[in-house]
Amino acid sequence: MLFHVRMDVRLPAGMDPDERAEVLAREKAYSQELQRSGTWPHLWRIVGEYANVSIFDVADNDELHDLLSGLPLFPYMDVSVTPLATHPSAI
Amino acid sequence: MLFHVRMDVRLPAGMDPDERAEVLAREKAYSQELQRSGTWPHLWRIVGEYANVSIFDVADNDELHDLLSGLPLFPYMDVSVTPLATHPSAI
Amino acid sequence: MLFHVRMDVRLPAGMDPDERAEVLAREKAYSQELQRSGTWPHLWRIVGEYANVSIFDVADNDELHDLLSGLPLFPYMDVSVTPLATHPSAI
Amino acid sequence: MLFHVRMDVRLPAGMDPDERAEVLAREKAYSQELQRSGTWPHLWRIVGEYANVSIFDVADNDELHDLLSGLPLFPYMDVSVTPLATHPSAI
Amino acid sequence: MLFHVRMDVRLPAGMDPDERAEVLAREKAYSQELQRSGTWPHLWRIVGEYANVSIFDVADNDELHDLLSGLPLFPYMDVSVTPLATHPSAI
Amino acid sequence: MLFHVRMDVRLPAGMDPDERAEVLAREKAYSQELQRSGTWPHLWRIVGEYANVSIFDVADNDELHDLLSGLPLFPYMDVSVTPLATHPSAI
Amino acid sequence: MLFHVRMDVRLPAGMDPDERAEVLAREKAYSQELQRSGTWPHLWRIVGEYANVSIFDVADNDELHDLLSGLPLFPYMDVSVTPLATHPSAI
Amino acid sequence: MLFHVRMDVRLPAGMDPDERAEVLAREKAYSQELQRSGTWPHLWRIVGEYANVSIFDVADNDELHDLLSGLPLFPYMDVSVTPLATHPSAI
Amino acid sequence: MLFHVRMDVRLPAGMDPDERAEVLAREKAYSQELQRSGTWPHLWRIVGEYANVSIFDVADNDELHDLLSGLPLFPYMDVSVTPLATHPSAI
Amino acid sequence: MLFHVRMDVRLPAGMDPDERAEVLAREKAYSQELQRSGTWPHLWRIVGEYANVSIFDVADNDELHDLLSGLPLFPYMDVSVTPLATHPSAI
Repeated sequence: MLFHVRMDVRLPAGMDPDERAEVLAREKAYSQELQRSGTWPHLWRIVGEYANVSIFDVADNDELHDLLSGLPLFPYMDVSVTPLATHPSAI
Repeated sequence: MLFHVRMDVRLPAGMDPDERAEVLAREKAYSQELQRSGTWPHLWRIVGEYANVSIFDVADNDELHDLLSGLPLFPYMDVSVTPLATHPSAI
Repeated sequence: MLFHVRMDVRLPAGMDPDERAEVLAREKAYSQELQRSGTWPHLWRIVGEYANVSIFDVADNDELHDLLSGLPLFPYMDVSVTPLATHPSAI
Repeated sequence: MLFHVRMDVRLPAGMDPDERAEVLAREKAYSQELQRSGTWPHLWRIVGEYANVSIFDVADNDELHDLLSGLPLFPYMDVSVTPLATHPSAI
Repeated sequence: MLFHVRMDVRLPAGMDPDERAEVLAREKAYSQELQRSGTWPHLWRIVGEYANVSIFDVADNDELHDLLSGLPLFPYMDVSVTPLATHPSAI
Repeated sequence: MLFHVRMDVRLPAGMDPDERAEVLAREKAYSQELQRSGTWPHLWRIVGEYANVSIFDVADNDELHDLLSGLPLFPYMDVSVTPLATHPSAI
Repeated sequence: MLFHVRMDVRLPAGMDPDERAEVLAREKAYSQELQRSGTWPHLWRIVGEYANVSIFDVADNDELHDLLSGLPLFPYMDVSVTPLATHPSAI
Repeated sequence: MLFHVRMDVRLPAGMDPDERAEVLAREKAYSQELQRSGTWPHLWRIVGEYANVSIFDVADNDELHDLLSGLPLFPYMDVSVTPLATHPSAI
Repeated sequence: MLFHVRMDVRLPAGMDPDERAEVLAREKAYSQELQRSGTWPHLWRIVGEYANVSIFDVADNDELHDLLSGLPLFPYMDVSVTPLATHPSAI
Repeated sequence: MLFHVRMDVRLPAGMDPDERAEVLAREKAYSQELQRSGTWPHLWRIVGEYANVSIFDVADNDELHDLLSGLPLFPYMDVSVTPLATHPSAI
């Protein structure tokens, strides 16, 4: 079941550089593990913004919330979820 | 080059049923031809709305505008385009 | 799997009274059938508005879109869907 | 008498972890007591957000404001209240 | 129990003058009856707009929705309801 | 001459508790003096929000601005003023 | 007492040209009479829009509403009123 | 003196095709004459929308308003004007 | 050439009182010099807000930007500029 | 391929003056290098705002994102990108 997710990252201005590097590294590893497992099939950067558009493929709403709220950057992001259905013209 | 496109369809309330059926049939054929050619790789329905989220893969901005403004439903749609870039964590 | 749905009804000003009565009767029957089956467990009127807040319990996104787009009033409604997850403090 | 309440939690970035844990524990206890008493019959998490949708069942507006402004997280939340009425098609 | 209600009237451009005069006369009578009974204690015009701010004093949400949806102008109005509570500094 | 005023209070997260208590006490005294004099005839709490809806009765715009900008909480509030006129259906 | 007023004109697409010319002529005469009397001291066009920014000088809110709702174009305008006070730095 | 202008075109759904073709032809001629004279140095289509972004080079605000309100499509457009100044880093 | 300017002042909560007094004194002197020279012909306070509506009379866009960006309060303000033209009904 | 970019700069209130001067100098050098190379053909200041409107001429979306995210002020800016196409009336 597919969901469209937009994430806008807002890191605090005075964040400690080491803490920042560490959370970004954990975010990358977390994201790539989900991409490899097929749960996060698409991840695109929005041009000019510290934001992404993603597609998630999950079993249900609870799984999606667990994945998103487990993102290392979750406390620093605005996340917006849109459920997707099969389009009748899709081939 | 990828673009994220959201299309919201707003058909006039009193549209003639035959005209409506005809434009929807043309829209479907047009869309499926672009899907087959790889130009329109993703097309999803937004749950509960007469709207879709699409990904287009085009050579440049002019090609994208020509494709979108050529949609049979173009006069009846609000279209919003977001350029996408490669995400550094994408695998 | 639960979804929060808000529906705002906007019937055309000059709608034929018989057509209006007929579509409202069909809407009521459709809604009550889904309520009886457990698919539409909550339906509330928003005070002062021709709008409702509903909770749907469905198997997946496609089932929800089919139910909503099948509403007799669907062509006359703005529908907004929010996926719900289990709250960790819910009992 | 039912009210629809949406709560968005915004904890300060640099909040002391112990203070944070303590206020969250108090919030959970407060919420579960109201759920057990029947005053807070529904509590759902919004997928991907630190937010919930709730239904309250109270005697009047003053009782609702007392309950909401007494939430341990109240100073850290945006709260939006919508009064609900019986829907004529509800069974 | 008090509620703050804002009503914005949008009569159709080509409305028949007699129908318009008739619905406005019914609206006035309906409003004044509720004012006399104490249910609609305040009614003010917003300067420069075809809109009003009102205070209603009702037993519960259902009574308020019945009163508002019974307004002769209801099909031509946007209505927004805000529940009010006692202010701790009010005398 | 009546004005509708909405005030949303936003006290800084880390405000000193004594300073906070002191400014709230001054706000209450200031407000009650204006209520007693008839200048601030209505003051209601908005349910679930640290906000109020008020009606002011003043001689002119300058008097209203002086009263509002003199509120002890003025530096911590968003204030929105709407001028009111006599409604032709008011009794 | 001064008020800032913005008016956006939205004439119906299919308005009869004679009716249009007649209402515009009446609007101009009405506006110029108020300008001559000192009640409407400033009237500016917003560049690129069928809209104006105006300053009115009136005795009270009721007078302003009477003047604005009496504008021949009032049924075709969105009007937004902002009360003005003396600025402490104005000379 | 430069101005940034965005124009969104909204032709009525049922516009007569000949009238439509005629107004579009006049718009094109009007636009190209201003481009040739140097008054309208840039004109770009917004991808996916019936809208453009333009730069105008005019002597003053009055000239700009005369040019824009003289556009054959002016009655069918939303126009938004932003004044531009020299940027200190521009070469 | 006239421009409509709205300025909303947002001084930081913990600003040093002396620094605050000093910048406000400089702002007042700066504003009054421009008013005396005829460049800033109107300056009004918006009732209930730390904001003003102003009219500027300048030679061109660059002069206006220089004046506005030179305001001592400029780093603490949201400024919105609207170009004005002669209104055909203005006398 | 052209893109319209709006950048709004929001430097933190308490930024160190030397750090501020240094990042602004780097921004200017970076911007002027791109202007000289033809990648950033237009750069205009928005009157009254710490913001600019720019036109970029790039090979593709990835190049644009690299350029924008490499701006020394990027962490302090809101950036909004709009893809542009050839306008059929442009000469």
